[in-house]
Amino acid sequence: MAQLRIALAQVDTTVGDLDGNAELVSSWTKQALARSAHLVVFGEMTLTGYPAEDLVLRRSFVAASAAALERLAVRLAEEGAGEIAVVVGYLDASPTPAPAVGRPAGEPQNCVAVLWQGRVAARSAKHHLPNYGVFDEFRYFVPGTTFPVFRLHGVDVGLTVCEDLWQEGGPVAVAREVGVGLLLCINGSPYEQGKSYHRDELCARRAREAGATLAYVNLVGGQDELVFDGDSLVVDAGGEVLARAPVFAETLLTVDLDLPEGAGTGVGPETGPDGPVDAGDGTTMAVSRVVLAADPLPAWEPRPATVADRPDPAGELYAAVVTGTRDYVRKNGFRSVALGLSGGIDSALVATIAVDALGPDAVHTVAMPSAHSSQGSLDDAAELARRQRTRHSVVPIEPTVAAFHAALAAAGGLHGLAAENLQARVRGTLLMALSNEHGHLVLTTGNKSELATGFSTLYGDSAGGFAPIKDVSKTNVWALARWRNARAVARGEVPPIPEEIIVKPPSAELAPGQLDSDRLPDYSVLDAVLDDYVSHDLGRAELTAAGHAPETVDRVIRLVDLAEYKRRQNPPGPKVTSKAFGRDRRLPITSRWRERDHSAG
Amino acid sequence: MAQLRIALAQVDTTVGDLDGNAELVSSWTKQALARSAHLVVFGEMTLTGYPAEDLVLRRSFVAASAAALERLAVRLAEEGAGEIAVVVGYLDASPTPAPAVGRPAGEPQNCVAVLWQGRVAARSAKHHLPNYGVFDEFRYFVPGTTFPVFRLHGVDVGLTVCEDLWQEGGPVAVAREVGVGLLLCINGSPYEQGKSYHRDELCARRAREAGATLAYVNLVGGQDELVFDGDSLVVDAGGEVLARAPVFAETLLTVDLDLPEGAGTGVGPETGPDGPVDAGDGTTMAVSRVVLAADPLPAWEPRPATVADRPDPAGELYAAVVTGTRDYVRKNGFRSVALGLSGGIDSALVATIAVDALGPDAVHTVAMPSAHSSQGSLDDAAELARRQRTRHSVVPIEPTVAAFHAALAAAGGLHGLAAENLQARVRGTLLMALSNEHGHLVLTTGNKSELATGFSTLYGDSAGGFAPIKDVSKTNVWALARWRNARAVARGEVPPIPEEIIVKPPSAELAPGQLDSDRLPDYSVLDAVLDDYVSHDLGRAELTAAGHAPETVDRVIRLVDLAEYKRRQNPPGPKVTSKAFGRDRRLPITSRWRERDHSAG
Repeated sequence: MAQLRIALAQVDTTVGDLDGNAELVSSWTKQALARSAHLVVFGEMTLTGYPAEDLVLRRSFVAASAAALERLAVRLAEEGAGEIAVVVGYLDASPTPAPAVGRPAGEPQNCVAVLWQGRVAARSAKHHLPNYGVFDEFRYFVPGTTFPVFRLHGVDVGLTVCEDLWQEGGPVAVAREVGVGLLLCINGSPYEQGKSYHRDELCARRAREAGATLAYVNLVGGQDELVFDGDSLVVDAGGEVLARAPVFAETLLTVDLDLPEGAGTGVGPETGPDGPVDAGDGTTMAVSRVVLAADPLPAWEPRPATVADRPDPAGELYAAVVTGTRDYVRKNGFRSVALGLSGGIDSALVATIAVDALGPDAVHTVAMPSAHSSQGSLDDAAELARRQRTRHSVVPIEPTVAAFHAALAAAGGLHGLAAENLQARVRGTLLMALSNEHGHLVLTTGNKSELATGFSTLYGDSAGGFAPIKDVSKTNVWALARWRNARAVARGEVPPIPEEIIVKPPSAELAPGQLDSDRLPDYSVLDAVLDDYVSHDLGRAELTAAGHAPETVDRVIRLVDLAEYKRRQNPPGPKVTSKAFGRDRRLPITSRWRERDHSAG
Repeated sequence: MAQLRIALAQVDTTVGDLDGNAELVSSWTKQALARSAHLVVFGEMTLTGYPAEDLVLRRSFVAASAAALERLAVRLAEEGAGEIAVVVGYLDASPTPAPAVGRPAGEPQNCVAVLWQGRVAARSAKHHLPNYGVFDEFRYFVPGTTFPVFRLHGVDVGLTVCEDLWQEGGPVAVAREVGVGLLLCINGSPYEQGKSYHRDELCARRAREAGATLAYVNLVGGQDELVFDGDSLVVDAGGEVLARAPVFAETLLTVDLDLPEGAGTGVGPETGPDGPVDAGDGTTMAVSRVVLAADPLPAWEPRPATVADRPDPAGELYAAVVTGTRDYVRKNGFRSVALGLSGGIDSALVATIAVDALGPDAVHTVAMPSAHSSQGSLDDAAELARRQRTRHSVVPIEPTVAAFHAALAAAGGLHGLAAENLQARVRGTLLMALSNEHGHLVLTTGNKSELATGFSTLYGDSAGGFAPIKDVSKTNVWALARWRNARAVARGEVPPIPEEIIVKPPSAELAPGQLDSDRLPDYSVLDAVLDDYVSHDLGRAELTAAGHAPETVDRVIRLVDLAEYKRRQNPPGPKVTSKAFGRDRRLPITSRWRERDHSAG
């Protein structure tokens, strides 16, 4: 056996920021060095940020990433980190280009490199490319066909990238075939509710398949609609968790491992096959071997590793939306946000998320009462602002709404929904004016249930730059509000959200006496149907078979189908479920498919 | 040799409208029958419409498509069309499902079927799946591995789908190997400027490779952002064009062909290989053979085929945007449109497109003058409305703008850009109010140059449901206006667009004396840089090497990079270039990549 101290660097990168990301690698490597680690591992495409989308089709970007990696190798050695192996994800062009229709321009690959003694000692590319849900990697990458193994202090270490774990065969099968002591997997695996359990199960299974200890490193932080939760971990060859990092925090997880020594010299025929090896997925892979340091280190007394607790589901979800909001605002160069505070639950929760993400001084809440706003709502909004110390202002909209009505009187005036939407658009215009004048990013306050059913006004309440609870159902909006208040109480603090806001019946207050329940089913009923129809893609017959009332099913799927255009015009927001609107779900606007007409399906 | 009369049905389907699309197949088949055709061929996924995007991941939709195909086969026979072979694209599940992570849920395939005598006589699936530009077919489909050949009146006919022509190897290679007399290719190939030439060249090359006459059938009409141009054609085995359909029109192209007779009985070993055949692309394909009618028909005197002229480039582009606009409005159930008519060239062109697409009674133009609007602009707008007989109205915005300023006076008021944007948002809100009240679809009037550089107001001039000139550069806006006027003059009509609108210097008229040239380079300079930066993905070094001034390059790429969020909030519009904003170009919003900082790339 041979010992290694490995460090998993769970860090928050920014897409396109090659210099800033290189700086992150340098500073976290120094910390790993300070802890006497022999190996430090960063996440998928750390150097470029992930996902870089169509940027990877720019030759100039690919070339800049490859050049940045070379510079980083030299820099690390100059900084005294030449004797720690640094595993880092980056973007490069295929070393064996074969341009053709249907292959991405410039032949980019989702790469992983090992930096050692001032140079790039090994390099390979992701073999399995995900092309479902939020992933489009057949559009972007040429698959890798080589499995790299490097020997470090007597241990053979193999490299894989993210999806290589999720699909059968490929690098994990090759790892078993060639024999490695440690298998590294670098990931850009976005958070979704309940996913961490699947990840644990998967890591355990693949470690057993490979017959090796598996170290899984994930990114952390928000990138547009994705939120990476970290949750990096190490499992032994039997599938037992040895160490786990906390979620939603940058961290360095250091673990002392006792691993099998590699056979032979580390290269050449006595070491093991160099390939081609049958990868068990219809392809063969070459094996590329390199020796960084042949001999095991003198033994030392291992330190116990950390196994971080996971928060409860509501706490995890709340952390995801706070993280997504904070990073979107910060990485886009904004220093403050503005939002309309109606006195309802949605804007109350968004204000609370914003204060937790950015601090109260950065949060500008604006009450914009109309003739239909209740005094209770105004008071509740003011009380929330007072408790959380936001920058609060009140701008009545009645005179402006009246000016619009006067302008259109000759054209016949506005009635019903047109008059309701007008109020929301006046508010949207006011917030955007404040944004343009003062540089705030406008947060929208719509939740997933509203987005699904089109229960919002285009260019009204959906106007803004980021939608923190875009993928949070109304049911979960209440759950998060209660969870956040309970946490405050547990800490002896005043609950941030006044109880009145949580318990009152929801209303858009755009017409006298209006309630959400006038137009939508009860939210607990609605959310259950939405979950099955949207997240699980059930057809009408399956929905009714699952116990949903046929009339509710018909009503809900009609609303959802008709709202596709409106959903597309909404700002991005953190994805937290298995199927969010946006990158996850791409439907035509022009479509006559009516699920209700095809109950046989 | 054996004769066949084939009919290519170039029709306009609607996504999701299984009943309506089946009705189209029935009615065009009757027309083919009336012309005594033996074979009628429809485009890719005719029965479901194309592209159906994530709808294909719904099991209920896949099942409904398969059931609709079976019903259609029976119906055609009942209608007396059982003895004409009907080739039609549809959606089905893979007959050999192999569910796995990374394969689309429900195993959908992009299929083609042959209907004959009341049943589905043959079926296969697209082999090459495009996954670039606007296509995401690895997300949606399982590739086909069978090459179907059916014998019809002595001729062996092979089937391919769209991308099967564009990539090397696959069905075309197999067609040569097994020997067919006629190769059919059914397509959903979207229009872009200059593409028809490539299509001709491709069809000629593949016909020579297959050693067979090639019949290429394309869809026609708009589907969300895509516009299918038709341009169906037949080339002989030497690559000569025998027939061509007109572009942007539903049509039935009938062609009498004299084709080689198939060998053997049409099935069995004496006929030719049944596979597996090396497809020359790293895969093997099975060959599935069926005989519909073994013997050649008695000879007849062939009729000469039509070879339609193509319009000139500007005429083709104009037809594309008119078609895209008409179909988007109609297929989404709108009967009228509204747009702001400023007196500038963009809104003048969009109004003209709308009138050509929908007729003047369906086009509501609204002039919304502010204090900064010139009398000339108002007069020009009124004159255009008069010439084209649109429903024109004038709604001054000054009092409403003043109401906003008053509402925000206590918060410090609005200045500069915030005050400019406010005017655009008041106009957007007025148009949306008219839309909500009267049911018009709002057309936005922004062009590609503005969209690229972010030269527009979110929720202002970009508020609306469809953007007819979203993918048309400002340079081409002028070219289309001149072309449209010239066509009118050639026909002895009054030019629809007053000359003053075409010749005046462009201005947003949001501040006194403002001109576009205050903030943007001259449009001819700007559009040239945009074409190279956006469509060709050149890096900074390549742009300057191509002769663009470095200071212009830096200015333009900075504007483009910063406008990504704004572009995403724009409505869809017809894609007419090789790279449109939207489905074609998917960039992160949160990105620190600055092309100008990496001139070495």
